[in-house]
Amino acid sequence: MLSSNLFNRMPRHRYNDCMPSEILSSPKNPNIQLARSLLEQGKARRKHNAFAAEGARLLEDGLASAFPLRFILYKTSLTPRARLVLEQIKPTQHAFEVDDKLFDSLSDTDSSQGILGIFELPELSQPARQGFVVILDQLRDPGNLGAILRSADAAGVQAVCLPPGTTDVWAPKVVRAGMGAHFRLPLLQWPWEAIAAYVDGMTVFHADMRGQESLWQADLRGRTALLIGGEAEGISPEGRALATRSVRIPMVGETESLNAAVSASVLMFEVLRQRSQKV
Amino acid sequence: MLSSNLFNRMPRHRYNDCMPSEILSSPKNPNIQLARSLLEQGKARRKHNAFAAEGARLLEDGLASAFPLRFILYKTSLTPRARLVLEQIKPTQHAFEVDDKLFDSLSDTDSSQGILGIFELPELSQPARQGFVVILDQLRDPGNLGAILRSADAAGVQAVCLPPGTTDVWAPKVVRAGMGAHFRLPLLQWPWEAIAAYVDGMTVFHADMRGQESLWQADLRGRTALLIGGEAEGISPEGRALATRSVRIPMVGETESLNAAVSASVLMFEVLRQRSQKV
Repeated sequence: MLSSNLFNRMPRHRYNDCMPSEILSSPKNPNIQLARSLLEQGKARRKHNAFAAEGARLLEDGLASAFPLRFILYKTSLTPRARLVLEQIKPTQHAFEVDDKLFDSLSDTDSSQGILGIFELPELSQPARQGFVVILDQLRDPGNLGAILRSADAAGVQAVCLPPGTTDVWAPKVVRAGMGAHFRLPLLQWPWEAIAAYVDGMTVFHADMRGQESLWQADLRGRTALLIGGEAEGISPEGRALATRSVRIPMVGETESLNAAVSASVLMFEVLRQRSQKV
Repeated sequence: MLSSNLFNRMPRHRYNDCMPSEILSSPKNPNIQLARSLLEQGKARRKHNAFAAEGARLLEDGLASAFPLRFILYKTSLTPRARLVLEQIKPTQHAFEVDDKLFDSLSDTDSSQGILGIFELPELSQPARQGFVVILDQLRDPGNLGAILRSADAAGVQAVCLPPGTTDVWAPKVVRAGMGAHFRLPLLQWPWEAIAAYVDGMTVFHADMRGQESLWQADLRGRTALLIGGEAEGISPEGRALATRSVRIPMVGETESLNAAVSASVLMFEVLRQRSQKV
């Protein structure tokens, strides 16, 4: 009788064999601590080579990818969509139910829908040399960075280079704004020397409001790297040394510049446009 | 002797005749109360037909525009750029020094740089019928809305229609992200009937990821209205009734959609591209 009561008080959703039998409620639980550190600290993300993806939609993208899932945390009061995702998880994977209040202390409920996954970064073999690469130099705003990745994925970009000085691409706000692009695009957080070697032989176009060529006149059909500078400082000296040409987005009126995500996207879709035109 | 001491304790920067001799420090001061209500409430902005522009750069744009300046508030510890703006202000205009702590309670210091202006909306005569108009339907994110206005200004858009259901375009975050476009673009917060009458005779292209025509195939050189839907709900039934054609941005990969500011901007610059090509 006692054990039955206990069972009723702690319903066990046995989605898989590794499922713990209790609802996690201690902030000192190692998985809670790991999730919190990955959500809050770039240092922890680098140390563990892992990151957190919040929300049902991102989890679906993650589960469909080659990224190893370490575990899932979900709150007791799940949204229907998040529950559907949870039910799809294979039996070998870990999913831990978390006390609502503790979960909310980890993750913004609106964006997480009460579910988040911890993924490891896969071993990234040196991606093949590509025809269309973007280098994001000194981007600081997480929303801009995520929106650029989302556009890059849609415009057929084959790899994104992220030199030192650009916001950590695995930070939660960037991952959210990326809308799954993180799981699909090779994201190369490399030192400048490695980036320089990687784009060797490509035309590196510096996107600059005072650029030599209009993007509509420039021939972007060859092996092209677009170098996009940050919101405040523009490109770094290392970026400048790499640029072989500069392109501008022609503008009318008195506006001096565009939002960084906007100008990067206008450029990337111009590359796609030129490449999809019949010769 | 006494009066000299008093003078030293309360330095009077006599930028103009209307300058009060004291530093405002009461939250009940009518100008402080007005600024706060305009920064915080759409209702107050509509009632007073006025809004707040924060920061030296925006103030410069505002002073160069036809928008009547009601007054300026600035904190004691101004940035050098903000001080330069203050020194440019004509003697007939009001500028009030505000206690630092009180100022910071009004406005985010980073974006305001310690200075903000209250501007009245000018009488907007019905703008002439135009060749390039954008309708923003159910846009909710202030940053997106501001970024779209910034792009619209740069792409040669001649008026922006803001039907009911779209975030208040005069809210501080939108004004900040607009980077001065608010002072340069006719922004028409109108009911749908007025918008329908205004775009009568134009081709209204609904931007839709499943649109009939690629934006690169569609002829956007005629009298064109771009109808952009919101981040979550897309376009409203009223918007749908207005659309005569639909265009899509071709995408590769698995991305289902783009950031709203990005897709609006890619479309607007395609209009500019087509119009700037030699026939």
